[in-house]
Amino acid sequence: MTGMKLTTQKNLMLFSGRAHPELADEVAELLEVDLVPTTSYNFANGETYVRFEESVRGCDAFVIQSHPAPINEWIMEQLIMVDALKRASAKRITVVTPFYGYARQDKKHRGREPISARLMADLLSTAGADRLMAVDLHTAQTQGFFDGPVDHLFALPVLASYIETRVDSSRVTVVAPDSGRVRVAEQWADRLGGCPLAFIHKTRDVNVPNSVVANRVVGEVEGRTAVVVDDMIDTGGTVVKAAEALIDAGASDVIVAATHGVLSDPAVDRLKNARIREVVVTNTLPIPQEHRFDTLTVLSIAPLIARAIREVFEDGSVTSLFDGAS
Amino acid sequence: MTGMKLTTQKNLMLFSGRAHPELADEVAELLEVDLVPTTSYNFANGETYVRFEESVRGCDAFVIQSHPAPINEWIMEQLIMVDALKRASAKRITVVTPFYGYARQDKKHRGREPISARLMADLLSTAGADRLMAVDLHTAQTQGFFDGPVDHLFALPVLASYIETRVDSSRVTVVAPDSGRVRVAEQWADRLGGCPLAFIHKTRDVNVPNSVVANRVVGEVEGRTAVVVDDMIDTGGTVVKAAEALIDAGASDVIVAATHGVLSDPAVDRLKNARIREVVVTNTLPIPQEHRFDTLTVLSIAPLIARAIREVFEDGSVTSLFDGAS
Amino acid sequence: MTGMKLTTQKNLMLFSGRAHPELADEVAELLEVDLVPTTSYNFANGETYVRFEESVRGCDAFVIQSHPAPINEWIMEQLIMVDALKRASAKRITVVTPFYGYARQDKKHRGREPISARLMADLLSTAGADRLMAVDLHTAQTQGFFDGPVDHLFALPVLASYIETRVDSSRVTVVAPDSGRVRVAEQWADRLGGCPLAFIHKTRDVNVPNSVVANRVVGEVEGRTAVVVDDMIDTGGTVVKAAEALIDAGASDVIVAATHGVLSDPAVDRLKNARIREVVVTNTLPIPQEHRFDTLTVLSIAPLIARAIREVFEDGSVTSLFDGAS
Amino acid sequence: MTGMKLTTQKNLMLFSGRAHPELADEVAELLEVDLVPTTSYNFANGETYVRFEESVRGCDAFVIQSHPAPINEWIMEQLIMVDALKRASAKRITVVTPFYGYARQDKKHRGREPISARLMADLLSTAGADRLMAVDLHTAQTQGFFDGPVDHLFALPVLASYIETRVDSSRVTVVAPDSGRVRVAEQWADRLGGCPLAFIHKTRDVNVPNSVVANRVVGEVEGRTAVVVDDMIDTGGTVVKAAEALIDAGASDVIVAATHGVLSDPAVDRLKNARIREVVVTNTLPIPQEHRFDTLTVLSIAPLIARAIREVFEDGSVTSLFDGAS
Amino acid sequence: MTGMKLTTQKNLMLFSGRAHPELADEVAELLEVDLVPTTSYNFANGETYVRFEESVRGCDAFVIQSHPAPINEWIMEQLIMVDALKRASAKRITVVTPFYGYARQDKKHRGREPISARLMADLLSTAGADRLMAVDLHTAQTQGFFDGPVDHLFALPVLASYIETRVDSSRVTVVAPDSGRVRVAEQWADRLGGCPLAFIHKTRDVNVPNSVVANRVVGEVEGRTAVVVDDMIDTGGTVVKAAEALIDAGASDVIVAATHGVLSDPAVDRLKNARIREVVVTNTLPIPQEHRFDTLTVLSIAPLIARAIREVFEDGSVTSLFDGAS
Amino acid sequence: MTGMKLTTQKNLMLFSGRAHPELADEVAELLEVDLVPTTSYNFANGETYVRFEESVRGCDAFVIQSHPAPINEWIMEQLIMVDALKRASAKRITVVTPFYGYARQDKKHRGREPISARLMADLLSTAGADRLMAVDLHTAQTQGFFDGPVDHLFALPVLASYIETRVDSSRVTVVAPDSGRVRVAEQWADRLGGCPLAFIHKTRDVNVPNSVVANRVVGEVEGRTAVVVDDMIDTGGTVVKAAEALIDAGASDVIVAATHGVLSDPAVDRLKNARIREVVVTNTLPIPQEHRFDTLTVLSIAPLIARAIREVFEDGSVTSLFDGAS
Repeated sequence: MTGMKLTTQKNLMLFSGRAHPELADEVAELLEVDLVPTTSYNFANGETYVRFEESVRGCDAFVIQSHPAPINEWIMEQLIMVDALKRASAKRITVVTPFYGYARQDKKHRGREPISARLMADLLSTAGADRLMAVDLHTAQTQGFFDGPVDHLFALPVLASYIETRVDSSRVTVVAPDSGRVRVAEQWADRLGGCPLAFIHKTRDVNVPNSVVANRVVGEVEGRTAVVVDDMIDTGGTVVKAAEALIDAGASDVIVAATHGVLSDPAVDRLKNARIREVVVTNTLPIPQEHRFDTLTVLSIAPLIARAIREVFEDGSVTSLFDGAS
Repeated sequence: MTGMKLTTQKNLMLFSGRAHPELADEVAELLEVDLVPTTSYNFANGETYVRFEESVRGCDAFVIQSHPAPINEWIMEQLIMVDALKRASAKRITVVTPFYGYARQDKKHRGREPISARLMADLLSTAGADRLMAVDLHTAQTQGFFDGPVDHLFALPVLASYIETRVDSSRVTVVAPDSGRVRVAEQWADRLGGCPLAFIHKTRDVNVPNSVVANRVVGEVEGRTAVVVDDMIDTGGTVVKAAEALIDAGASDVIVAATHGVLSDPAVDRLKNARIREVVVTNTLPIPQEHRFDTLTVLSIAPLIARAIREVFEDGSVTSLFDGAS
Repeated sequence: MTGMKLTTQKNLMLFSGRAHPELADEVAELLEVDLVPTTSYNFANGETYVRFEESVRGCDAFVIQSHPAPINEWIMEQLIMVDALKRASAKRITVVTPFYGYARQDKKHRGREPISARLMADLLSTAGADRLMAVDLHTAQTQGFFDGPVDHLFALPVLASYIETRVDSSRVTVVAPDSGRVRVAEQWADRLGGCPLAFIHKTRDVNVPNSVVANRVVGEVEGRTAVVVDDMIDTGGTVVKAAEALIDAGASDVIVAATHGVLSDPAVDRLKNARIREVVVTNTLPIPQEHRFDTLTVLSIAPLIARAIREVFEDGSVTSLFDGAS
Repeated sequence: MTGMKLTTQKNLMLFSGRAHPELADEVAELLEVDLVPTTSYNFANGETYVRFEESVRGCDAFVIQSHPAPINEWIMEQLIMVDALKRASAKRITVVTPFYGYARQDKKHRGREPISARLMADLLSTAGADRLMAVDLHTAQTQGFFDGPVDHLFALPVLASYIETRVDSSRVTVVAPDSGRVRVAEQWADRLGGCPLAFIHKTRDVNVPNSVVANRVVGEVEGRTAVVVDDMIDTGGTVVKAAEALIDAGASDVIVAATHGVLSDPAVDRLKNARIREVVVTNTLPIPQEHRFDTLTVLSIAPLIARAIREVFEDGSVTSLFDGAS
Repeated sequence: MTGMKLTTQKNLMLFSGRAHPELADEVAELLEVDLVPTTSYNFANGETYVRFEESVRGCDAFVIQSHPAPINEWIMEQLIMVDALKRASAKRITVVTPFYGYARQDKKHRGREPISARLMADLLSTAGADRLMAVDLHTAQTQGFFDGPVDHLFALPVLASYIETRVDSSRVTVVAPDSGRVRVAEQWADRLGGCPLAFIHKTRDVNVPNSVVANRVVGEVEGRTAVVVDDMIDTGGTVVKAAEALIDAGASDVIVAATHGVLSDPAVDRLKNARIREVVVTNTLPIPQEHRFDTLTVLSIAPLIARAIREVFEDGSVTSLFDGAS
Repeated sequence: MTGMKLTTQKNLMLFSGRAHPELADEVAELLEVDLVPTTSYNFANGETYVRFEESVRGCDAFVIQSHPAPINEWIMEQLIMVDALKRASAKRITVVTPFYGYARQDKKHRGREPISARLMADLLSTAGADRLMAVDLHTAQTQGFFDGPVDHLFALPVLASYIETRVDSSRVTVVAPDSGRVRVAEQWADRLGGCPLAFIHKTRDVNVPNSVVANRVVGEVEGRTAVVVDDMIDTGGTVVKAAEALIDAGASDVIVAATHGVLSDPAVDRLKNARIREVVVTNTLPIPQEHRFDTLTVLSIAPLIARAIREVFEDGSVTSLFDGAS
């Protein structure tokens, strides 16, 4: 046959935006590769500029960017990085979003709202992303917003393994902080050996829109350790109110476990002062020193992400990373 | 200006597949239009054939097709109808799926599964659908699977208005039949004046995949009327087991309310023989005479759909059809 | 260069739906690979479920599914398989449809009809198919409906080689059963050494739409063996009427050769009782034991498909599989 | 409602490229509109320039361009016109190609060929065409190459009405000049009252690729008027050889009818000198004075196109333009 | 015809993001419509939320959002507004960006850079924008980045009319502040009656990348009023250095005219202290009170935008808004 | 894992259209590969036919076609080649256009014009091109018209190295022949050691559209060698007028350097007779013997293209081909 032949090699290259470099560094170290040297800054008027300092032709690119505040800034940076990779002939581009922004805007709660979680998926595709990797999307349906392969990683094993060292399983009740998270709490209860389940029922005054009049505990918590589980802690209002209701309902103590420590103001103050024995999160988002408090425990998500990237690169099975349930 | 001018008129045309003609007839009557005469049949080898018997150029088409069994048959018929409309110059095509098939396959429960609910949305778009109208999607996130306007109608007001005539509100507990439906049950509890909430906690044996070992009732039901609410009743297993657990837990009686009466075998037998006072569904799906039993009440969804179609055609606000919450 | 390098391997994986497992098994055996273990079933309400039992990341997938009745069922299963493969990171997906459904609806015969053969091509693309392989499409133009590479395989050499062992070439007339198939019959005549050609002219009453009033034989058949050739035998009406007209016109005997044995009711009864010496088809479609009759010969298409798959995988030339004419 | 309201008007605007202005003028006159003044020329290096001399915002544009030689020139001009219309905010763009170029390259005859007829459909869509109108596509399947509405007009009624005035129907045999056109010839035979049908069988030497060794007449033509029907006459080789074979087989005389008079060299010389009583074509393509000869009759296709454009603009039914069969 | 008919009305609705409400208010007032009441805010973690407070079904939407700092914030808000409009059934969506962000990143200056100006166009399309309106794009080629109609408005007439009142035309030299803006300066020179042209030649040290060693004035400026023209003033460095070079070269005084007053730090300080008689910009971007200084003149661009929106809505000709040159 | 494994090889294959075979031959020779044997011709009615004479499955295809007159002919041929490659399963298709046609129509100069440079990029993508390689696009923004990787090669080093051997750098002024090319001229000035810069200011009569009344030289040229630089010489009018103005302004002599020698009539006559010492171009376009004149020097661009193709194939860095500035 006419032509010039060459054995094909694939080349994993790891990129990081400026949102959460510590996590990217940790993943790089675990994978034993260097992050690709990248110039990123904002122009005087705020426009983002990105340039890679070495050739990326033909590479299998993984672009790590979590989405803390200022969230629109970091999403746009990731889109621009993907555009630059596409135009520089990267062969395959996997967007890694440890925390996927706008995940809560996954449906129209009322008419004339956006579905921003779908929009973000489409923006990433348009920029050139072929694949998406994320940890604990707010709802699993968000996988279906992306028109391509999604590696949906679960932090539950990481968090639960730690919690198991901190509690007497026979005295635990898993608690969903609101009615929409009971299914996830049930997975925790299964994982913790079939312990009881409870949730907080928020009752509303039908005459006042969106007003919550009471937080009722539904389920058995008296004399038990309540483990409140959620995907994220944002301003902390929900879990702090849940903790109060649980203590009032006779719980002996309260532990909170969540994948994403968003910790927007005034979360840190609220959590510090709440009757919560321990708050456990992972580092899918950066948690600056000034947001750390005594009862906060931060577990690293980097090993999970590093293993997943390696399997994707080597065409292994990410499914095997997880418990049977995944 | 050069050319020939004409005032633009829009023309609503209503089409029905063969899946549930009674519902389409009822909608047509309420809208005071005739269904467009359509030839539909299957060739000897099973291929579907469709042809419209009058011109559809420039029309604003609404294609009503629910998705009962044989479900693939009816989805394909709807796709083919949409293709024929597109090629015949319909101006805008709204697909109306009172029951949207594959809505439960809205995420990968395990690796290497499809996300069929997204696939169906994409197939409809590919065939030529511009808009989607559906009643009570299994999860609201499915709205985001369609890349265009979705009119998501809620049957809750229809069902709840009826239930209110059948129970003493002060003695009701709303019950979610599993952990994934507690959020919807909470909306019911708000609507029924802030009544208590309960749900069925299915515990699993960690050594046997997918095995449910017990159905625990979490919440107060003793001496109360339990109203079990769900989006659909398929084989009836879930609600019948819920009813048993509720009676065992001391509920005085049980009523079941669901939007979609799928009623696959052996649902009818199970429901007839269960300790359930009344089963209430709507006619989003056809319920043949032989599936009707004494304690079954079927409410019509046609008025809701007819009003929504009219508002879409006239550029009114579908949001106004519903309670403030929607 | 920064990063981690690996030599790329490609991995052929063979998948089969439930429509025609015997053919897939035969192809797998010829390729000396196992079919990928797959769980497929229908839920109680008819929805199709599919899951692959091993990792498919990075594979070169070939998804074999023929389209017998219930045809919409099997097409939808194939679409769902492709969606699952796409989401599970298969690298390239080739859809293999030995019989491609809806191939006859390849144009609008009248206004306001669908072009379902194009629609099917678009649905397959939307689900994620990169390539298409099919045997004897009803019209070759259907290749152009798919926006990507199509491997169009011809059964003519398989069928003709067999026919040559059954007839005296010097006494054969090749016959097209209707005016639309004369071009294909001419290819047969060339292949059988330049023998005469005839066709059945269906005359219609202009006052009665679609009515055929007579089947006239055009061409020389008296005292000759008429080999009626077609791409498929569906209900058998066309070929049986052709056979009658040929015998009436003095043909000494009739043989029928077709690629696809659709054999919808009442094809088997008609063919059994017709004045046809032998009916020859391939197994692009399953032919159950109860559809087999004395004068039916079924040739295997599996070797052709297996060779084509191997060439596609190895970047060989499928063109070389065929006679110069292809 | 907030905003500013206006009754919508639609405005038909007619555009013509430089390929066949006479036809566009005739259509404009029949529609009683002026062609939109347009500047079109080629730059010194051959690049095509187009600009419309009045506003086209919001118009319903019909862009008439037939595809005579130099065919690539005129296709590109049409693409550029469509691009300019799209960017200037035309509301809907219908491409009118009385003769659709590359229609014969509608499949891969051999490996590694393009399917240019599909490519042209995709190029038109990419430029911005919403709809396609064409006369007698080489194969009807080409409709399916365009992903949108296609108005496929048939010249058969125009041609056949004329032929009926020129022959004694009871003495006519309709003849397909090759095996691929018999189906169309059958439609003619039905139209001409059920007259006999014949075709030319080209036999090939299997040892010499593409060599035709003989043109056999299959069917009854002795003592009859043979009406040879085809979609186009390109170099005239096929119909002239057909005429010779028919005269040799005893036909009393030969008339040729074809929709498209391509008349590439040496068609005019061949036809002038052939034993053909009359050659009848339409003016879908320009036929310059020097290509006109005594036995050539050119019928106007403009009335058919004008009526179709009017119906498309007014949302009438183009289907009604034609015989029941269409 | 079956169905229900209605005369179509179109409804202009005007929307504004939070980036530059003063300009949107001014445009609304000129159009004599109200801005659609809109709820927009950021969640605690920075995610943007938008909801329209009245029905937008079927409307012709114009979404005004300029792109000042924090630019990524405002672009994302505009994308989310467009998504919400698309999902709420707006009929047509025109994005109005008086200052189009990232316009300067319109090409790869070096390898492995993004082309962010194209990316922004694609993001807007993906969100659902059908059309784009912008004022003085950095390069006119950016029009071609958007795959749809672009209304490109020019501020030159607004600026030049004002300048003409401030200078003696016979003593003016128009000056481009760098080599890339000479073409635009030439348009100004034509407009100002054919006055002389000059530009600043930046010489670079080939041994130090991106270093400018000198600003040479090329052209006649001695004793003349130098009018430095540019599309935007960002940090002011370029125009201030130009002014210095011009004064050094003997210019009697310097006026600066630019469409977009970006005025990023330290522009205000620089301009205040420079030897520039007057700085003239338009209000395509907000210019807060604290950025206003004595020699700054701000002209309103609202009349131009309002007229353009009205013409687009009424299908008038935007071209007619401008001088012949546009 | 189930399946069949193979190490992946990539195979560079080089294709040439008929526009400029000499250049393709030269590139092939430098790469030490043969051009893939290809059959290309026009049918009698002007339709283009292309077929590759060997298998191209899985290849990394580079399709070289420059765009001289008849330009639409050669663009269409390239589109058809790409279509054939896509359908024949080429793995990746890079379109190489040494001269990219329609590059000057990169914006709307006036309303209702096309943006043909964008249209060409979209047509290439639609046909199946994955990547684009071009030399000196008229404006660099055209890179952004293609939605994929673009390798934009610069001829400046080739041309400048030659010019440096022909002039005394200390006596050179680089001249832009019009106001739009000053930026490029500045790059030349940097390259030639920081020499002076000038340009031709075309003044227009505001009362006569598009009329140029004078060509003023802006900048110092007296007694110097003026090197007029441009991307292309089309009819030669611009550079010849520039040369005249320069001589009139006292330039001692004039050299013209341009990448693309379009040389449309009457360029050759004009250039031959102009007061220009030497005209230097590259062979991105064919320059037939009869267009060569004494003062014309043609440099080969083939080494640049060959090196770029090799780097793309081997995933090297094309950026490294160029000076730091690129």
